[in-house]
Amino acid sequence: MTEFDHRPRHLDTKLRARAREVIPGGMYGHQNAGRLPAALPQFMAEGDGCRVRDVDGNDYIDFMCSYGPIILGHRHTVVDAAALDQQLRADCQNGPGEVMVELAERLVDVVDHADWAIFSKNGTDATTTCVTVARATTERRKVLVAEGAYHGAAPWCTPIINGVVPDDRAHLLHYQFNDLDSADKAASVAGDDLAAIVVSPFRHDARHEQELVDPNFARGLRSICDGAGAALILDDVRCGFRMAYGGSWEPIGVAPDLSAWSKAIANGYPLAAVLGNERFRAGAEKIYVTGSFWFSAAAMAAGLATVDTLGSESALAKIERAGARLRDGLAAQARGHGVEIRQTGPPQMPLLTFAGDDEKFTLASEWTDVAARRGAYFHPWHNWFLSAAHTDADIDEALLATDEAFAAVRKALDHR
Amino acid sequence: MTEFDHRPRHLDTKLRARAREVIPGGMYGHQNAGRLPAALPQFMAEGDGCRVRDVDGNDYIDFMCSYGPIILGHRHTVVDAAALDQQLRADCQNGPGEVMVELAERLVDVVDHADWAIFSKNGTDATTTCVTVARATTERRKVLVAEGAYHGAAPWCTPIINGVVPDDRAHLLHYQFNDLDSADKAASVAGDDLAAIVVSPFRHDARHEQELVDPNFARGLRSICDGAGAALILDDVRCGFRMAYGGSWEPIGVAPDLSAWSKAIANGYPLAAVLGNERFRAGAEKIYVTGSFWFSAAAMAAGLATVDTLGSESALAKIERAGARLRDGLAAQARGHGVEIRQTGPPQMPLLTFAGDDEKFTLASEWTDVAARRGAYFHPWHNWFLSAAHTDADIDEALLATDEAFAAVRKALDHR
Repeated sequence: MTEFDHRPRHLDTKLRARAREVIPGGMYGHQNAGRLPAALPQFMAEGDGCRVRDVDGNDYIDFMCSYGPIILGHRHTVVDAAALDQQLRADCQNGPGEVMVELAERLVDVVDHADWAIFSKNGTDATTTCVTVARATTERRKVLVAEGAYHGAAPWCTPIINGVVPDDRAHLLHYQFNDLDSADKAASVAGDDLAAIVVSPFRHDARHEQELVDPNFARGLRSICDGAGAALILDDVRCGFRMAYGGSWEPIGVAPDLSAWSKAIANGYPLAAVLGNERFRAGAEKIYVTGSFWFSAAAMAAGLATVDTLGSESALAKIERAGARLRDGLAAQARGHGVEIRQTGPPQMPLLTFAGDDEKFTLASEWTDVAARRGAYFHPWHNWFLSAAHTDADIDEALLATDEAFAAVRKALDHR
Repeated sequence: MTEFDHRPRHLDTKLRARAREVIPGGMYGHQNAGRLPAALPQFMAEGDGCRVRDVDGNDYIDFMCSYGPIILGHRHTVVDAAALDQQLRADCQNGPGEVMVELAERLVDVVDHADWAIFSKNGTDATTTCVTVARATTERRKVLVAEGAYHGAAPWCTPIINGVVPDDRAHLLHYQFNDLDSADKAASVAGDDLAAIVVSPFRHDARHEQELVDPNFARGLRSICDGAGAALILDDVRCGFRMAYGGSWEPIGVAPDLSAWSKAIANGYPLAAVLGNERFRAGAEKIYVTGSFWFSAAAMAAGLATVDTLGSESALAKIERAGARLRDGLAAQARGHGVEIRQTGPPQMPLLTFAGDDEKFTLASEWTDVAARRGAYFHPWHNWFLSAAHTDADIDEALLATDEAFAAVRKALDHR
């Protein structure tokens, strides 16, 4: 234990040991804390606004927002009330509730490019359905994806290919994000078999600096798809509603044909959506996708309340303001400690990296570890998320933690 | 409208029209009422016990149980309280709650073959993860599935192949359910590339009579897998916990290596699970599967409450008793009306078919339509589901509706 331990910590040791008995590796997937700095907990007990508490009773100001879903804050009164009201009447039934139609209408209204919606449960459901709709519509096979981009964890897209057969990815071709030439070349290889180009609103690959989209690149992809009769698929699963009230590329004026949504659209309730335009409606009618809980009403009621709250409360401005205040504070602290950093991505979904850090993110991990011990929950190599519940006071309190984190990094650098 | 309309019905006409504007085809997936008899509603408003109400205020005794998830009855006090209690503290967080470990421990305890659990959201997530674990463990590719069986709606398994490329199914080989020779032959074709055999606890393909498993067939599949070093995967998504308290093949003494679960394990809350044995743990640790809501705690709390309630309240005996009473009643009514029927599958998940019915299930549809108008919700060509909330009185009341339905079929037969 170091000088930064201001409170007793137990690091959920016993629970992690129990988990190793009955869960492969003790945990799996993106929330596996075994890969994270020691001070970050594996098991969480509570959330409220931008504050979370782990099972040992340690509190944190939360800058991961459950890896994206929490956009209005944990335990949001309006959203939770809407979900509970629906739950008390009906959730999983023999058919959807009226709220499915209302939510589809609202999304079609709010998102410019959208004429229809298909709901599901996982972001991966949404990206996979987009590809299926594109293939059903175009009757072609090839799909372009950016090298290193994350579009879900199904066999065709999971970043770790154990258990995946090459056939699952037989028709994927790769381009480099923001490199239109590379996309042009990949499209040429696909030729008249090009079904779709899949792209994220900005480059937010884990373990990489983030990169905002070049509008000319986005327009270029749109142009390739128009020329080839292929679908432009925007994977808005991670960014949706944090970048814009509407699709994340509305501000740059580039409309996808299909977009994939999940994470924040219901403030933590399990929901995903594909939004599409008229050209792809017939293809969407031809495919068969479904799930036992895809039509459950409570998550849709939460989604409707989330979308309406985001629209009426200037939530996006709050999120952006909080992110900017954090970014400014971190920049000043880094200068003060003489630590060279890079802050990339939009302020709503920032990432902090350290000049001279290694492939293991040793400096970022030290920084994250100390910040966690002081009560601020960040991540060393995955982008963070701000929410509308982060006030100026929360940011300023978190900056007390990050100041100690920068001091620790300074010390580590001095001992190199 | 016929003589069986005892109440005003609106058939959610306006809502269906609105849905057609913003949802492809007005609805998609297994709950698309556009393919069902006219009296079955598309949109549902309420559920309580074994009773459901549509958006027009028509009430039904529910024999679909949301296509399986509702096993203890809609709005179950204990399950809903457990989920709400968890929801009020934390649901979707930066990590799972303690309840994830508790639920994994409970499932490992209750299901004989299981040493570990992986949770997800869709039955399709679970079946797909089983195949991925099998391939990661065996480092082989071929997977045997029964001709016509439903294992989900991902590209590798969806029953309608629009938008699916042949590569998605490149390594599937088919056998006939309960035909061990056909499985032997398919396994021979796979040779030393056999990764897994996927099988349902009994044959419950839609649009077919159901068929219970021949224990010798089950043992034969186990033997093929043992001989080849392949995984036996039991797809218990639809049957899990309705056939047995434990895996559905525990009563016949055949243990799978991996089993896929969803539907009823949390009484309607969105949850799925893969259960596996020690041999496949290392493979499960090697793969990467995840989802934004896979670790959400409320559905897991519901799952824990569901499993415990099923264990403590003789729920399965109640479900079986209700199914047997329904089956006996239907058999007597059919005899009384001189209508030749077949009732197949276990009493907990029955299916009624009519001798001489056509490929459109015209007789079954007429029967289902009349039963719905009289207040009993059945399905013409998908197996039904009983729950622990179906009392003798409920069954007897539903039989009043089915008696009129048989009369209508008798009349239809007389007019042929």
